[in-house]
Amino acid sequence: MTSAPAAPATGAAFLAALRDALPTLRLLTDPAETEPHRWDETEYMRPGIPLGVAFPASTAEVVTIVRLAGAHGVPLVPRGAGTGLSGGAIAADGALTLVLTGLDAIHAIDAENQLVRCGPGVLNAELGRRVAEHGLFYPPDPSSYEISTIGGNLAENAGGLRCVKYGVTRDYVLDLEVVLADGAVIRTGGATVKDVMGYDLTSLFVGSEGTLGIITEATLRLLPLPPPKLTLLAFFDSLTAAGEAVAEVARRGIIPVTLELIDAFTLKAVEAVLKLGLDPDAAAMLMIESDAGGEAAAAELDAAEAACRATGATSVLRAADATEADWLREARRRAHWALEQAGVARTDDIGVPRSAIPAIIAEIGEIGARHGVRIGVFGHAGDGNLHPSFIMDRDDPDAEERLEAVRAEIYRAVLRLGGTIAGEHGTGVPKRKWLAEQRGPAAVAVMHAIKAALDPQGILNPGKLLP
Amino acid sequence: MTSAPAAPATGAAFLAALRDALPTLRLLTDPAETEPHRWDETEYMRPGIPLGVAFPASTAEVVTIVRLAGAHGVPLVPRGAGTGLSGGAIAADGALTLVLTGLDAIHAIDAENQLVRCGPGVLNAELGRRVAEHGLFYPPDPSSYEISTIGGNLAENAGGLRCVKYGVTRDYVLDLEVVLADGAVIRTGGATVKDVMGYDLTSLFVGSEGTLGIITEATLRLLPLPPPKLTLLAFFDSLTAAGEAVAEVARRGIIPVTLELIDAFTLKAVEAVLKLGLDPDAAAMLMIESDAGGEAAAAELDAAEAACRATGATSVLRAADATEADWLREARRRAHWALEQAGVARTDDIGVPRSAIPAIIAEIGEIGARHGVRIGVFGHAGDGNLHPSFIMDRDDPDAEERLEAVRAEIYRAVLRLGGTIAGEHGTGVPKRKWLAEQRGPAAVAVMHAIKAALDPQGILNPGKLLP
Repeated sequence: MTSAPAAPATGAAFLAALRDALPTLRLLTDPAETEPHRWDETEYMRPGIPLGVAFPASTAEVVTIVRLAGAHGVPLVPRGAGTGLSGGAIAADGALTLVLTGLDAIHAIDAENQLVRCGPGVLNAELGRRVAEHGLFYPPDPSSYEISTIGGNLAENAGGLRCVKYGVTRDYVLDLEVVLADGAVIRTGGATVKDVMGYDLTSLFVGSEGTLGIITEATLRLLPLPPPKLTLLAFFDSLTAAGEAVAEVARRGIIPVTLELIDAFTLKAVEAVLKLGLDPDAAAMLMIESDAGGEAAAAELDAAEAACRATGATSVLRAADATEADWLREARRRAHWALEQAGVARTDDIGVPRSAIPAIIAEIGEIGARHGVRIGVFGHAGDGNLHPSFIMDRDDPDAEERLEAVRAEIYRAVLRLGGTIAGEHGTGVPKRKWLAEQRGPAAVAVMHAIKAALDPQGILNPGKLLP
Repeated sequence: MTSAPAAPATGAAFLAALRDALPTLRLLTDPAETEPHRWDETEYMRPGIPLGVAFPASTAEVVTIVRLAGAHGVPLVPRGAGTGLSGGAIAADGALTLVLTGLDAIHAIDAENQLVRCGPGVLNAELGRRVAEHGLFYPPDPSSYEISTIGGNLAENAGGLRCVKYGVTRDYVLDLEVVLADGAVIRTGGATVKDVMGYDLTSLFVGSEGTLGIITEATLRLLPLPPPKLTLLAFFDSLTAAGEAVAEVARRGIIPVTLELIDAFTLKAVEAVLKLGLDPDAAAMLMIESDAGGEAAAAELDAAEAACRATGATSVLRAADATEADWLREARRRAHWALEQAGVARTDDIGVPRSAIPAIIAEIGEIGARHGVRIGVFGHAGDGNLHPSFIMDRDDPDAEERLEAVRAEIYRAVLRLGGTIAGEHGTGVPKRKWLAEQRGPAAVAVMHAIKAALDPQGILNPGKLLP
């Protein structure tokens, strides 16, 4: 699927045609200016050198760019804020990067039908604040929510801390406006919560990382704003016990809004920098939250606490108020950042059936020990979605090679346990070579057939998602 | 996409090859025996004359059938129990119908991870009963749930009475085993609730009505079994007031498990045959249910009752116990059947944004009056999903023509109000000609491109879903 970079003459002709067709388009070509837009949060991935970086201000401008790109055979890399962790937004050699952050309008908040229609450039947190003014709630909240765009969230089918109860980005998408590879503009759905006309194109474009079309507008489903959360932290003297607690919470029919796990290594790193007064000697901590409201929330946390104590929690504490809860949640949100203080932290993203959490944690520990790689583990245990984070020594010349071996062993263990190599951070660049191992060659052939059907020239985000 | 029927010689050669390859396959070719498998619940649709009807007993048998069908250019019509309301399962001329009800094993109930893996032939209600033994719950419950198969539910992305709170079939599918048009077998997902490896093929196959592949196994997500439901009925002296109540319930942040509307015409028909003691003079009735449990459920119904009274409910009654609740729910479930007693009832299936319910009900009434067609309206008001049901006189030679005009006017009104022509009963046969009007020609072209990529010979369920 990867297009060869366009020849310099082709690129120059394309840029000239683009300037001609869209004289007011913001278009950067000076390498000093395009540099900040080459990267996402995977600084180790070595992005390509783009032909240029364009900032379209409307769907119509995107259409013009796509048509000209097709005519000149120049590939396109659509992107949002670049907070992705799998390289989905990194530049490709000779491609034009399309930064869609300018399409950041919130077109309509329909309180009656609990919908919002917006451009892909709006920040997740901004959307959340705006709909909250109407008593409404957009659940998906990746850790990057303050700085990531809805378009990026859609491209990667982002998850977050509330997925146990509320699901992922795809679950909230009712309709997309998409510019196809030939410049045609389609709408995939509508404003109703049930709709069975034709194939579900909406779900296909969500998570397709800009390889099938460019999302220029989305209609998202909202919920009534839930009550403030109550927060519980439970500490364990073994990771296995914490894993058992996760399973026990589910077994008892408790569906908290958040059920996060932090291992000892990550907990120490968090405590070292945030000084929250957490037990630095615990082997694992769970953070469990309820937004059931009032007494129901207290009862839900009582039930969760009982499940934790039944599986060996050594201590349990509750946030006294919303401020303290925010402060404790910060411990989890900043886990990656805290680990960064211990070296270069490379965050991974795997998923296993919930019951396999103790097993995968044990395997990760064993694999890390065998290869001499320190690995912090934290993540959305309630979904079986964990983020093993590899701490690398900047001065170790063999680090990348060892890490590659560690990742391969972890991925094989994940697949053996019935899990997924990518839970919520996307397939992107590094995991596409694993796609056939997880899905099987025939399923990957179907994906290639769909890609070829929708983007026969292969101009949309080459080198991403598909092997 | 419609294949021409195979020539008789081709059909005979295919059947001979099939008998040769699968001597133990149950294969009917006598028209008297194939007759009952030509139909679904759309008896007015005039199915084709099939080449034969096969009952494969395993995925391997499906693969063999599909490969031979491809080699001989014979189309295939996969189907379940035939309870569909859009003709998705009706026979095609010269095609082999594949009845998948024999693939009815429940392979595994994984209580720890709240999953069930089963064949497509298992009945929805049977699945529900079996997982309930483990304290688990499969939410999607189309009205046909006692007699419809999971495979049929998947093919049509079936809804039901619990969708307001729990969503539709697609929301519960984690993984599918699919036999493709070339006989390859793929798995689309896995056993984890989050998974972003590659494109979302799972959602693409759900709702594709057997036109992209044949589903031979599914892994479905379950929830903890909720407490017994509490049931409230509210009566109104105008449909508009009932529609306002639906909007008010949502506005107050109440998410009942069920929020059903029945109009006066349907209510009278139900009361006439079921004699439940419902107010036969009301202009509309809402049925609202809560499964929040104990006091929370009572509080939820209190809040719903307040919303109904604030919007003009003339009376409200609550089921005294679970038996009475079941009995009242029966009123809604048997609405279609009750209308059948008044003549030939043709049930339709539209969706509008919730706020447009009063408007679409008014339009339906006006259109029916203008054309002299009696129309009962009931349905899942909480989702904006209504089932206008046309009462036809068997002896009226112009009935079909008038009905066609009425449907066209209703569909145009639905689209004008931002709705969908098909909410939960599938696109099937009669609505495919409306697909481009709803989605636009470019989106339909994408669907055709996907169909051509996955089924280049067009052998899978020709004449369904796509125009």
